[in-house]
Amino acid sequence: MQQSLECTVAVLGRTPAALNALLRDLPEAWVTANEGEKTWSVTDVVRHLILTDRTNWMTRVKFLLEFGELRPFPAFDRKGYAREAQGRTRAESLDEFARVRTQSLAELHALHLHPEQFAVRGQHPALGVVTISELLAAWAAHDLTHLHQISRIMAHQYHEAVGPWSRFLGVMHCAGHGQ
Amino acid sequence: MQQSLECTVAVLGRTPAALNALLRDLPEAWVTANEGEKTWSVTDVVRHLILTDRTNWMTRVKFLLEFGELRPFPAFDRKGYAREAQGRTRAESLDEFARVRTQSLAELHALHLHPEQFAVRGQHPALGVVTISELLAAWAAHDLTHLHQISRIMAHQYHEAVGPWSRFLGVMHCAGHGQ
Repeated sequence: MQQSLECTVAVLGRTPAALNALLRDLPEAWVTANEGEKTWSVTDVVRHLILTDRTNWMTRVKFLLEFGELRPFPAFDRKGYAREAQGRTRAESLDEFARVRTQSLAELHALHLHPEQFAVRGQHPALGVVTISELLAAWAAHDLTHLHQISRIMAHQYHEAVGPWSRFLGVMHCAGHGQ
Repeated sequence: MQQSLECTVAVLGRTPAALNALLRDLPEAWVTANEGEKTWSVTDVVRHLILTDRTNWMTRVKFLLEFGELRPFPAFDRKGYAREAQGRTRAESLDEFARVRTQSLAELHALHLHPEQFAVRGQHPALGVVTISELLAAWAAHDLTHLHQISRIMAHQYHEAVGPWSRFLGVMHCAGHGQ
């Protein structure tokens, strides 16, 4: 399918509620366990989503519209999630994600992007030339990659418990690729 | 983490609402597209979840309690989802999944399983000896494998649209393993 602003916003608008339905009041062990040393827990992922909405996606959209290819985007601090939300409860994090996402989408809406602006080009510090269209699609796909990761982290906790069923459960064999 | 009935039921009880929040009223293209020939769309996955709750999980729990290792479980018709829900709208499918899941969990609750029953053994037609404990864990992990699959099917629709970002999005490189 083609990317469209409508389709992208439809995903972005739904992710906080989907995570809320999945994670709120879930027993603690599901959200604090990870996939092994130096891997993220579900809680880390939610913090990362808050941080990327707060400092990355709309910041880059506006940066790209202002500077085009003249300057590369400022680098994103991928480790910042560890400082983000210290002491915040899970319910507060889920609420905060919903709040920052609503604000991000209001900012996007306020830009009144015209179709010809989707082709505007910018410089990603690692990926090189990218367009607004790719940046917006990547934002939605970033939600999906972390939903994919959350389901994999959770399934990992039952890797032993499912016994021989592991063979039939694709999620148990996902390589992850660091996300 | 150890599997526990509480943790398993907590996931099983949340999946319908999570899928509802993600999928209800999402633009049609997201839920009808698949990952290529002979692969499932998101709609197919929801139908499969309805069918497995209706004919598989609790049926097997009760079968195992009744027959133990005396008889293997009846085989599950994995293609049945294609007949399931013909003509049902997406909203009706999401409602139906919530309804069958509520009913499944009510049946599970009514069994008042005792801890010692978790070790009761049965015969899976393909996997051999399995326990009630493994069967229940597999039910929850099956939800997670299909949430994992849904996020991957959706992300696949933006594989081209994200341009060079594909490199940073783990979901775009998930092999899938048929699920």
